[in-house]
Amino acid sequence: MATNKAFMRLYLGLVHFPVYNKNGDTIASAVTTLDIHDISRVARTYGSRGFFVVTPLEDQKRLVEKIKGHWTGGYGACYNPHRKEALELVQVVDSLEQVRDEIRKREDEAPIFIATDASKESGRIIGYDKAREILKQDRPVYLYFGTAWGLHKSILEEADYVLEPIYGPTKYNHLSVRAAASIIVDRLVAK
Amino acid sequence: MATNKAFMRLYLGLVHFPVYNKNGDTIASAVTTLDIHDISRVARTYGSRGFFVVTPLEDQKRLVEKIKGHWTGGYGACYNPHRKEALELVQVVDSLEQVRDEIRKREDEAPIFIATDASKESGRIIGYDKAREILKQDRPVYLYFGTAWGLHKSILEEADYVLEPIYGPTKYNHLSVRAAASIIVDRLVAK
Repeated sequence: MATNKAFMRLYLGLVHFPVYNKNGDTIASAVTTLDIHDISRVARTYGSRGFFVVTPLEDQKRLVEKIKGHWTGGYGACYNPHRKEALELVQVVDSLEQVRDEIRKREDEAPIFIATDASKESGRIIGYDKAREILKQDRPVYLYFGTAWGLHKSILEEADYVLEPIYGPTKYNHLSVRAAASIIVDRLVAK
Repeated sequence: MATNKAFMRLYLGLVHFPVYNKNGDTIASAVTTLDIHDISRVARTYGSRGFFVVTPLEDQKRLVEKIKGHWTGGYGACYNPHRKEALELVQVVDSLEQVRDEIRKREDEAPIFIATDASKESGRIIGYDKAREILKQDRPVYLYFGTAWGLHKSILEEADYVLEPIYGPTKYNHLSVRAAASIIVDRLVAK
């Protein structure tokens, strides 16, 4: 089991386009600084090999690079080296296609795409046991999360699998993407 | 098991004083808006009965009340009713003593205090199995998290138990309090 974890080739992702807004329109969402910090720290904690932030917007890409630069190369790297170790995992890309190319380049193998979705309506839904099984097969896996009101249908369709949403003992399923990513990665890796 | 969960009397907490800063000095940390949002949504998702934000600073208490007021009574409640359901759980108090009194008043019974600490140095550490067992005993439980560089020693000493830190397969344990609270509550309640 420890061996499996050590060899796990898990990549995380946060998608800002195309996603839905509150009214169901397709939008490109703005990058939230704390998402980048929190999810890169989760990635680092659980041994993920990279964290791809997906946005085609030039100013948003620059924002992500600025955050990363501050903490990995600037004053921040010295002030808080733990943050450096986390933010080094961040790479900003235009699209899921680019993620696929990048992981293939690094791993010499195409990744399996697992999308996450808080709604229950997607097809090809898998549970946590099945997702853990996939992770143990020693194939690279890209596990990605949507921002705003969730991943666009077209993006869910590009996924090989869609992971079932998180429920506690209530019917409420409105966690922040930071909380959802933390819980899901813990469920998949810590066991 | 479902019955146990339904009867669980879990309260969450976020402590801003006394905590440590980076240099090990005792400070009162500033409230982070997103902590209040994220952790109240976790509380709501997992059926927690309340979320006590601890700070003795008047301006910080006002800030928490303002956030809560906006989303539970103001325009925000209408804009996003899910956020209302979460933030209704928030109550801001001065101290852990006040939390104890408040829970005793609501539950007719003194709560068990479980602190969380990312360091390994605290005594009376319990694992997740033991904490789940305590939660199932149908006693009110207050599970609390420190901000900044962690809960002050004196606050850890007030706890009945201290929960073991979160580790993934790496030695890195620098999650945000938002991520740590999400993962810990999921580990304790979702199983």
